Amino acid sequence: MSEQSHYQYNVSMSCSGCSNSVSKVLKRLEPAVSKVDISLEDQTVDVFTSLPYETILEKIKKTGKTVNSGKKL
Amino acid sequence: MSEQSHYQYNVSMSCSGCSNSVSKVLKRLEPAVSKVDISLEDQTVDVFTSLPYETILEKIKKTGKTVNSGKKL
Repeated sequence: MSEQSHYQYNVSMSCSGCSNSVSKVLKRLEPAVSKVDISLEDQTVDVFTSLPYETILEKIKKTGKTVNSGKKL
Repeated sequence: MSEQSHYQYNVSMSCSGCSNSVSKVLKRLEPAVSKVDISLEDQTVDVFTSLPYETILEKIKKTGKTVNSGKKL
């Protein structure tokens, strides 16, 4: 099994439709993405994955949402 | 100048954040996409483009929004 990383991205999401879209796109990457936690209140997207940080970032950007920042936890 | 087509897609969008995301992603395709009209009320995305129907469809799907139908007008 490949090593898992935990990344957190700050993403502008204004409704549950927005956050569901981000979730849906990231879950298409299963099993390379093992878990996605989204908080609309905190405007955060937590991703547990074996994929690189940049790969996930690009995928989120393709949803059309603005990614304000991101980090490895 | 290449021939322009007008496609209309029915897309589930629940807020202006949702529709802005779709708009933003499609406008990245300029100048191959010349115009994007989105109606949140009608749940429609109208695209004027020289690109194929499927190319635009795939781009919208990557936003994580559900595309219910689409047609060439």
